[in-house]
Amino acid sequence: MCELLGMECNVPTDIVFSFSGLRQRGGRTAEHADGWGLALYEGKAARVFLEPTAAASSPLARFVADNPIKTLLAIGHIRKKTRGPVTLANTHPFVRELWGRDWVFAHNGTVRGARKLKLGRFRPIGTTDSEHAYCHLLEVLRSSFRDHPKKLGDLRQALAEAAGRVGRRGSFNFLLGDGQRLYARCATRLCYIIRKAPFGFARLSDDDVAVDFSEVTTPRDRVAIVSTVPLTTNEAWTHGEPGTLWVFDKGRLEATLPSR
Amino acid sequence: MCELLGMECNVPTDIVFSFSGLRQRGGRTAEHADGWGLALYEGKAARVFLEPTAAASSPLARFVADNPIKTLLAIGHIRKKTRGPVTLANTHPFVRELWGRDWVFAHNGTVRGARKLKLGRFRPIGTTDSEHAYCHLLEVLRSSFRDHPKKLGDLRQALAEAAGRVGRRGSFNFLLGDGQRLYARCATRLCYIIRKAPFGFARLSDDDVAVDFSEVTTPRDRVAIVSTVPLTTNEAWTHGEPGTLWVFDKGRLEATLPSR
Repeated sequence: MCELLGMECNVPTDIVFSFSGLRQRGGRTAEHADGWGLALYEGKAARVFLEPTAAASSPLARFVADNPIKTLLAIGHIRKKTRGPVTLANTHPFVRELWGRDWVFAHNGTVRGARKLKLGRFRPIGTTDSEHAYCHLLEVLRSSFRDHPKKLGDLRQALAEAAGRVGRRGSFNFLLGDGQRLYARCATRLCYIIRKAPFGFARLSDDDVAVDFSEVTTPRDRVAIVSTVPLTTNEAWTHGEPGTLWVFDKGRLEATLPSR
Repeated sequence: MCELLGMECNVPTDIVFSFSGLRQRGGRTAEHADGWGLALYEGKAARVFLEPTAAASSPLARFVADNPIKTLLAIGHIRKKTRGPVTLANTHPFVRELWGRDWVFAHNGTVRGARKLKLGRFRPIGTTDSEHAYCHLLEVLRSSFRDHPKKLGDLRQALAEAAGRVGRRGSFNFLLGDGQRLYARCATRLCYIIRKAPFGFARLSDDDVAVDFSEVTTPRDRVAIVSTVPLTTNEAWTHGEPGTLWVFDKGRLEATLPSR
């Protein structure tokens, strides 16, 4: 199993605090030592840091934590492999361009018989069930809409349905970003919190670190954080209902759809 | 104008020495301060470091130089913008997946009327002539072969012809990698060197640095380096003929094709 971390905000925010917590789980406080990745959007493009090694002891992960990049949308992942060897190609998150923007995807769980899922223009580079399922999902979206969906509602409905079909093959918790929105599907374990005014203290579960968000925010700021498990001990996280797709935009939960 | 750096080898090699020279040109010894990028392959997948800032003063570029990653194939770029603002989406190299592998592209020059070049499944994320031309090139390859070309000769011929057509619109020096080979087209300025036994000293043009390659290599090693201008002062670089495509494989110049 792996762990997921997503952040979606209305003002550029650095993900260091949450990433520090996730990073500790990559080989120190939990056994997810088979790779890590972090995608940070700037507009429609994502920069992605990837390493097929433990995040907790990675100099690059430390560099990313020490040199924060502010972003409106980020997706992170630490891997405990279930399928596919430890290689760069098998390291989440995965990225593909569709409709002139980067789509970023990270998965927690296992999809049985993923290779039976139909592919089209997107092909896996590595050997994981996750990347195969991702390529299938994107192909469903592409073939449903050709030149970009006209209505957002149609897109999220198509995504919820396709993800539900894939989810019948196992556990398909995932985060998907398109540079604008964060889509988060809960199959077994996923939770979120929205930080907004009045901001207060938060204490990481996995590290001896606390931050007073009131010192680094304005009253307008809204930050949605999605994670496999709560990353802090003193905040109220909302746990997902299995078979649900959340859509976050500008730090708000914009929609909750059934995805079975 | 921008500057290109490619490396293609028969054993995993770190690109730090050449990247150090290129990095100095990104804002210190030359005015290419509008971004830099470096793609390092591991098999069919590439990890890409990108920043829309000057390489010479970039902490991330220093980190990459200080924490060398060995690879068989790397493509680097520093940008002096001619078209398109300084954003992450406009920072080379660009990456797209085709036939289950990452294709990495970096361009030096300007393509006039690039937006008239026909697109298909690959769409630009940014606003540069370079990325548009790249998406066009990949679409030509994809639509020519569908499920991967059966013969390498057919692929490189199609690439040389398509690049030649694009090249009539301006200056189209580029590096293109597919995880196996490095394709390098010379329109105006491009040169290469192949380092092999007996290895000797090399001294960087742009930095007070020299390295004795005989200390870090074995007699079997072969490393091809391609660059906009010679990076060292004491080696014999081969300058490209305008309208030529070089193909490098396992540290050898495998083929030279006309591309007009």
